[in-house]
Amino acid sequence: MKKFTAIGLEGFPLVKPGDNIAELIVKTARRNGVIIEDGDIIAIAQKIFSKAEARIRRLSDVYPSEKAREIARKTGKDPRFVELVMQETSRVIKASAGTLIVEDKRGLVCINAGIDKSNVKGSGNFALLPENPDESARKCRVELARLTGKNVAVIICDTYSRPFRRGQVNFAIGIAGIKTFKDYRGLKDLFGYTIKVKRTAVVDEIACAAELLMGQANEAVPVVIIKGLNPFVEFSEQSSISELYISREEDLFKNTL
Amino acid sequence: MKKFTAIGLEGFPLVKPGDNIAELIVKTARRNGVIIEDGDIIAIAQKIFSKAEARIRRLSDVYPSEKAREIARKTGKDPRFVELVMQETSRVIKASAGTLIVEDKRGLVCINAGIDKSNVKGSGNFALLPENPDESARKCRVELARLTGKNVAVIICDTYSRPFRRGQVNFAIGIAGIKTFKDYRGLKDLFGYTIKVKRTAVVDEIACAAELLMGQANEAVPVVIIKGLNPFVEFSEQSSISELYISREEDLFKNTL
Repeated sequence: MKKFTAIGLEGFPLVKPGDNIAELIVKTARRNGVIIEDGDIIAIAQKIFSKAEARIRRLSDVYPSEKAREIARKTGKDPRFVELVMQETSRVIKASAGTLIVEDKRGLVCINAGIDKSNVKGSGNFALLPENPDESARKCRVELARLTGKNVAVIICDTYSRPFRRGQVNFAIGIAGIKTFKDYRGLKDLFGYTIKVKRTAVVDEIACAAELLMGQANEAVPVVIIKGLNPFVEFSEQSSISELYISREEDLFKNTL
Repeated sequence: MKKFTAIGLEGFPLVKPGDNIAELIVKTARRNGVIIEDGDIIAIAQKIFSKAEARIRRLSDVYPSEKAREIARKTGKDPRFVELVMQETSRVIKASAGTLIVEDKRGLVCINAGIDKSNVKGSGNFALLPENPDESARKCRVELARLTGKNVAVIICDTYSRPFRRGQVNFAIGIAGIKTFKDYRGLKDLFGYTIKVKRTAVVDEIACAAELLMGQANEAVPVVIIKGLNPFVEFSEQSSISELYISREEDLFKNTL
């Protein structure tokens, strides 16, 4: 039967700088009665990596540059918050009243370079994205293999707004052990016609599936284990989230917004 | 335990004009040994509704307007194909070499008004989106209740390209019985801070989860039944896909591409 099951690990502990995420996953899975198996895909909210990797910043420690002050004036945001965003940014895409959209130094286009406050302790504290989410995913996967002996894939994810549609959905921001796309180009459809352009971004779709169990408030479910999906995606030692990033010149949606 | 299971119904029959999709789902579920239960969420690829609702068009029957010819010159597309797109369009957003992006008459922004060729029989035949996907979903849900006595939600979905990221993902395009968003605004996070802006577009996330089993080639799996997710989303008699559509003025990404 063509099916998969997604399991949200409940009661995940609060994560502190230096924590080994893979160890916490293995322990929490055990407490949940979940056995990690070959072919499992483990989706993990970025925030626990931000915490483990000490990527939390306190606004009162930040000294805003002149550039940050200028953007703060345009956007109405705290200059120190803007400074944090600018340190993570390669290109400002939009700075207007209430809105700061950038391409971050990893290549991800999003609001505020993915920096936010939710589920971070301390009123002036904000979480930056992991420095290199692919590398965070890779290390976590290696650790999971060491601890369990199992070959799993890891997807680090975060929720973002998107153009043309209200609300947020989860995106993959770092991956290890799984191909980014399922590529249908050159395959035949039901009637033998050759498919020309379609390749589905399965890592984003898996991130979305996982978010349905993670939630965004006080659920404390930052890790979702997906079982049974491996026959329908491709595991791979060679993949990078950067395959999802597209230059403005190549973007079909250029000049649409 | 916090979990859900997604099941792709295999061996779905080819759909013909006038077919009752709900009946085909009930029969195919039975053959797959899947029992439809209260709280199931049934994700359905739009193409089978296009077929059942006789929304297939033959290019040789289409006479292109002057406007369609003009856009065909700009895009390099077949004028008759462009005419089909224009009949479904409220606003052309971009017409350039190889690219035609529109807001369709339903409010959905996408390439070619969602009209495509894949899994449609006959070399000159193309499938239009269902005329009113919410209404198609509603009728299917009512029929499923009549046939099974069960209260399920229905999400009609289709894959689309999106700005800023390569590849396609599934979007919801018509819904019945389920709330569009999970709204976190006003809720507290782990540390008691109030969440300000987040509401996740759960119907899009469910569409993504389902696509992982549907595939886009000759899989013949247009229906995925999701079990166990109902405690984590909200069923509702009042919802519409139009809640996802956003005007250019309100779109945070205005002027970013």
